[in-house]
Amino acid sequence: MSYFDVASSAPLHPVARQALHASLDEGWADPARLYREGRRARILLDAAREATAEALGCRPDELVFTASGTRAVHTGIAGALAGRHRVGRHLIVSAVEHSSVLHSAEAHRHDGGTVSEVPVLRTGAVSPDAYADALRPDTALACLQSANHEVGTRQPVAAVAEACRAAGVPLLVDAAQSLAWGPVEGGWSLLTGSAHKWGGPAGVGVLAVRKGVRYAPQGPADERESGRSPGFENIPAVVAAAASLRAVRAEAAAESVRLRELTDRIRARVPELVPDVEVVGDPVTRLPHLLTFSCLYVDGETLLHELDRAGFSVSSGSSCTSSTLTPSHVLKAMGVLSEGNVRVSLPLGTTAEEVDRFLAVLPRAVAAVREKLGAPAGTAAVAVSPSGAPDVRVVDALGKRCPIPVIELAKVITEVPLGGTVRVLSDDEAARLDIPAWCEMRGQEYVGEEPAGRGTAYLVRRVAS
Amino acid sequence: MSYFDVASSAPLHPVARQALHASLDEGWADPARLYREGRRARILLDAAREATAEALGCRPDELVFTASGTRAVHTGIAGALAGRHRVGRHLIVSAVEHSSVLHSAEAHRHDGGTVSEVPVLRTGAVSPDAYADALRPDTALACLQSANHEVGTRQPVAAVAEACRAAGVPLLVDAAQSLAWGPVEGGWSLLTGSAHKWGGPAGVGVLAVRKGVRYAPQGPADERESGRSPGFENIPAVVAAAASLRAVRAEAAAESVRLRELTDRIRARVPELVPDVEVVGDPVTRLPHLLTFSCLYVDGETLLHELDRAGFSVSSGSSCTSSTLTPSHVLKAMGVLSEGNVRVSLPLGTTAEEVDRFLAVLPRAVAAVREKLGAPAGTAAVAVSPSGAPDVRVVDALGKRCPIPVIELAKVITEVPLGGTVRVLSDDEAARLDIPAWCEMRGQEYVGEEPAGRGTAYLVRRVAS
Repeated sequence: MSYFDVASSAPLHPVARQALHASLDEGWADPARLYREGRRARILLDAAREATAEALGCRPDELVFTASGTRAVHTGIAGALAGRHRVGRHLIVSAVEHSSVLHSAEAHRHDGGTVSEVPVLRTGAVSPDAYADALRPDTALACLQSANHEVGTRQPVAAVAEACRAAGVPLLVDAAQSLAWGPVEGGWSLLTGSAHKWGGPAGVGVLAVRKGVRYAPQGPADERESGRSPGFENIPAVVAAAASLRAVRAEAAAESVRLRELTDRIRARVPELVPDVEVVGDPVTRLPHLLTFSCLYVDGETLLHELDRAGFSVSSGSSCTSSTLTPSHVLKAMGVLSEGNVRVSLPLGTTAEEVDRFLAVLPRAVAAVREKLGAPAGTAAVAVSPSGAPDVRVVDALGKRCPIPVIELAKVITEVPLGGTVRVLSDDEAARLDIPAWCEMRGQEYVGEEPAGRGTAYLVRRVAS
Repeated sequence: MSYFDVASSAPLHPVARQALHASLDEGWADPARLYREGRRARILLDAAREATAEALGCRPDELVFTASGTRAVHTGIAGALAGRHRVGRHLIVSAVEHSSVLHSAEAHRHDGGTVSEVPVLRTGAVSPDAYADALRPDTALACLQSANHEVGTRQPVAAVAEACRAAGVPLLVDAAQSLAWGPVEGGWSLLTGSAHKWGGPAGVGVLAVRKGVRYAPQGPADERESGRSPGFENIPAVVAAAASLRAVRAEAAAESVRLRELTDRIRARVPELVPDVEVVGDPVTRLPHLLTFSCLYVDGETLLHELDRAGFSVSSGSSCTSSTLTPSHVLKAMGVLSEGNVRVSLPLGTTAEEVDRFLAVLPRAVAAVREKLGAPAGTAAVAVSPSGAPDVRVVDALGKRCPIPVIELAKVITEVPLGGTVRVLSDDEAARLDIPAWCEMRGQEYVGEEPAGRGTAYLVRRVAS
């Protein structure tokens, strides 16, 4: 039984557990009170703030604790936008930010603000030049994650921060995925994070706002946490968060080397062991513990169930695993295959044996799903087209969900002659991403899409045999 | 060492601690995930929601967990106001609500809404008729606490809820102080609470919204907790909150009788043991564990320090104990003395011995503070005025903080003849409340206030010897 989804939430680090237990007796009182229980609580809170600020690379009075990473992002973006509303109401985000950032951007847009979404390269990284181009005189705030939560690609934060600094625009860095591995390099203005991602407890986020950054707290006033995070302080959890951050940082150097070897092994072996796989994300500039791949002709949800039954907990950005039936916005922005998507994020201490067992289990699991779906068998399945075959074929995949439209396409492509066309009718949102991705993987030509009576028609020309 | 400030925060109930420990291993994963760790977390969350909903008297799907009671209030008010913005933008609150409610009202006013503040009687309770009079055709939401956090007075929630129902206006009840003792009676529409007030952990608030109540979540979208409470769920804390609520409810019947006897004893004995004390709040319709009194000629902060040194942790609504140097808005709304204010709120299990020791310590502590401040000695200190004394005396207490202006007044009043007047110049905000309160306690006539060159002049006529 291996939990390989630490990017969603990490199990509580033993140090966090100890610190939590120890501080339950000392940290429950109101730190604003002057009696002994309050003073003890205050001491714990101050010490936790100092330790966490040191780990983030900021001053204690620049740091407040929030109730979650999501709250830190919502709060930080709203406060920074309001603090600079006289400059303008333009917000920049990357296309692959966490949903908390994108939802804040959506709320800002709804509120009359403007938002630019900087696209990413196929690796998932923004180009610093493209980001710099988005900066405008009315830009109030720019946001960039330190590393992507779905594919692990590290963003060029230092370069983007430098461009923002030159333009006089504050940069908010969502560092939720990377704080376990080290502080964020470069001249960020605001920084957010989430303790349960680094092995701390749920219920603790961090929001750092550099001195000198214009900031106006939004919502009803509250005197706690410098007026930036309302509600009674959750001191035992904050203490546990601080202690575990220190603990994981102490292990970070050694574990990052070890886990990078393990994730490199998975990245290298999966395409050898499983046919028709695309490993996505930057192969080098990435988080050490996280990797993502997509399997052609595979239903992500079914694959996750197969892997769960085999003892592996992983997650997926496939549309069939989301409540909205749309593929992950990250994979979409990268333009990579989303069907049969699997994200593996290894906790500290993951053993090579676990990884080897995963590599042993995965091919069978993928094959089982493909067999159920009647997928084309293997990459060698491309037959010579029958002579006299029609040069346009229509695949009606209306009402069928990912990965069925791509499976039907793959079956029919061999039945048109070279130069012939397949027209796939589909009303599944994932097809828009996965049909071009399939073409790229298969060396076929993606001609484009056009509206159809129902859904959309995707046109593919057979150019490879 | 006795902690008598459970109204600020209760020590963690042993059941909460057990539940927290037990669920740290099971409740750290993302309950939205389909793998085993996610499913286990989901089961814990669902069970906690069911148990808590039962204790609140609502359906599980009407209840969401928030990060704090303050967040529950901010979120609930904003969502209910937005849900009915077409009806109008009028909000009703009582004058003695918790700051989270009043700050929400202030934010609403800032945002262009209108707010009516319903005054309270000298007991701290609203009159249901006065509350009903505030209802208007454009009233979007009404708010009333179940019981006051500073003086313990229970509010007539059922009667106010009935008036609101008749007017078609939803009523939000902030039940933070009373949930340990039982569900809120009457037809509330929204209800909020805070786990650390009932012996649960920090980091958990509750927000219930009855089916059928118009509600529109505000701020950036988030799929968690029915879209009403953003951020990763804090499941171990939620489980501990649910378990402890059930546990304290099981003790509530017996403990409420026992603690009521203890608080009745304090209410009765304090005025006998300490001269010049006003016990405030409703003597009968009140929380069982909480009482409040104010001591004339006493500096609240110094008294809290004296009591802390003697082993008692209590809190105060005196201006000198607040960061704003204004007296508690609750005492102000009630029109009662604020100087030397002490709130005693007993935890479950408080013994009669502890209370007796408090009663033994208090008179000495108050006397020590009065001696330091040079306060008039005892109630018998009123001397016959010297013949030929001037019939107007001015007391310049500018720059002096509570309780000095009242002490100076008390010294000088004996020096004017009956019918003569003392004019107290003060720039201390507490004087506005405490000089009239002193007059009421002493049977002197409070004539009124008028602007002075600096600060305010308070006029007192000597009518009692």
